[in-house]
Amino acid sequence: MSPLKPGQALALFVVGAVGGLIGDAAHVQTGTTTYLSDAFPFIWESAIWFPLAVGLATVLTGDLRLRLGPVEPWQGERLREAATAIASVLAIYAVSALVSDRPEMAGTTLVVMLAVICVARFASGPPALICALAAAVLGPIAEIVLVEVGAARYGIDADGLFGVAVWLPALYFAFGAVVSRLTELLVAEPAADSATA
Amino acid sequence: MSPLKPGQALALFVVGAVGGLIGDAAHVQTGTTTYLSDAFPFIWESAIWFPLAVGLATVLTGDLRLRLGPVEPWQGERLREAATAIASVLAIYAVSALVSDRPEMAGTTLVVMLAVICVARFASGPPALICALAAAVLGPIAEIVLVEVGAARYGIDADGLFGVAVWLPALYFAFGAVVSRLTELLVAEPAADSATA
Amino acid sequence: MSPLKPGQALALFVVGAVGGLIGDAAHVQTGTTTYLSDAFPFIWESAIWFPLAVGLATVLTGDLRLRLGPVEPWQGERLREAATAIASVLAIYAVSALVSDRPEMAGTTLVVMLAVICVARFASGPPALICALAAAVLGPIAEIVLVEVGAARYGIDADGLFGVAVWLPALYFAFGAVVSRLTELLVAEPAADSATA
Repeated sequence: MSPLKPGQALALFVVGAVGGLIGDAAHVQTGTTTYLSDAFPFIWESAIWFPLAVGLATVLTGDLRLRLGPVEPWQGERLREAATAIASVLAIYAVSALVSDRPEMAGTTLVVMLAVICVARFASGPPALICALAAAVLGPIAEIVLVEVGAARYGIDADGLFGVAVWLPALYFAFGAVVSRLTELLVAEPAADSATA
Repeated sequence: MSPLKPGQALALFVVGAVGGLIGDAAHVQTGTTTYLSDAFPFIWESAIWFPLAVGLATVLTGDLRLRLGPVEPWQGERLREAATAIASVLAIYAVSALVSDRPEMAGTTLVVMLAVICVARFASGPPALICALAAAVLGPIAEIVLVEVGAARYGIDADGLFGVAVWLPALYFAFGAVVSRLTELLVAEPAADSATA
Repeated sequence: MSPLKPGQALALFVVGAVGGLIGDAAHVQTGTTTYLSDAFPFIWESAIWFPLAVGLATVLTGDLRLRLGPVEPWQGERLREAATAIASVLAIYAVSALVSDRPEMAGTTLVVMLAVICVARFASGPPALICALAAAVLGPIAEIVLVEVGAARYGIDADGLFGVAVWLPALYFAFGAVVSRLTELLVAEPAADSATA
């Protein structure tokens, strides 16, 4: 059984699915990615399975985070932290779309460095870092399979890693750290620091 | 009478006017915006009323911040915080100029997410958030009027919101939070934390 | 004799040389800079003297930091701070490459503002600020000499400052603050805050 309660899993699913739709629209409109099949209906710019897959990946990452270690009590404003975390990974998503027609090295360096800053900011410790690394490995593998089966392709200046973009692991690395932080914000007890006086 | 002292109002006016000149130069040189009239003299790339209007908006936003709630004592280096706040909104201003010829979705996502991060970083509480929201509504309305009367226009890839850019409310949202923080830095008492020993 | 121990100097040299190679590859591939001579062998996209010079500049900046003032004990995770600092300056390096074909004002504004945020985040005090200012002056002078002697040139949209880019002092400004912070992380005693209980 998942350590996530149903309401927590639903919240992560919705955030992931909506965030995936927003980021994917930027990728499709810039030609970073192109869907090659219309076998499934589209929502906005995305085939319907894409936001569902990102929502599911978000839930699975949150589940993994809770299995890997306990969550410290949270001190501070949760909504502010959640907004910062979600906006950070979507900003990197948008940057990856905007650099997709430029020389791959410069864009990749930017996306990778932003992802490092994002993970250093939001990963609370080894369990969150493991989630980020797992996402950085498994996410691109899933997308390489999608390219292989002809469901989608990356643009000609953004396909240097077995058909997907070289910066894709970095984007998923940031995703894993952000989802870990969101999961922690959902389940953490309030900090008792003001009660110690 | 304004809760701002004359010297404080002047400081806000100068910061706003100079920042407006810098950001507007980036907008004009990238074709994000174009002035359609030379009825007024120009300073650098801007019609003279533009920096005056931004300076005035900065003072009015600071005035609103002080009317909406008290300012907590400030602990830390004010110049460092002020430099970070000003640089943050001008960085977003420059990003909006640089994305103005790219697909509107990707650029808009980036500017919106950067604005969310900026507001989450600098808005101290509900009064500052109200200032940010007020700027996000009133700033674009003022610019829509300027476009309607033929004073200026936005580029063809950056005019999706009644003739102004879709990301314009986000830029003003960040502006409102930054001006609130600058106002707080101008009027806050020093924190007494080191005096408690 | 340098206040840096040999192992500390070597660490700074390696970080600087590798970072210089990564950033320079982005500059070369975007046409921001072009080497005009093949008198020296190349590593990746760089003439071999470039990473050596950046590594040496990193050591000299760290040496200057220690001569200018004592280093406070460090509280917190050093690896997280070091990763954030290194990624920040390399992100700015990559941004400078990506804006090099756009109107110089907008790109320069973005690079300058990011550098201000970076210095405000990483400069611990006056000694670090002096290191950042020294780098901002001496780095571009060295590159202007390299352009003058015909070793390299900047692109036609990025040569507005005596043949080098107008944003180059800002990039070195961020570099100086980041190297100061890395040096502090290498030499600082652990903070005794948890031992006071």
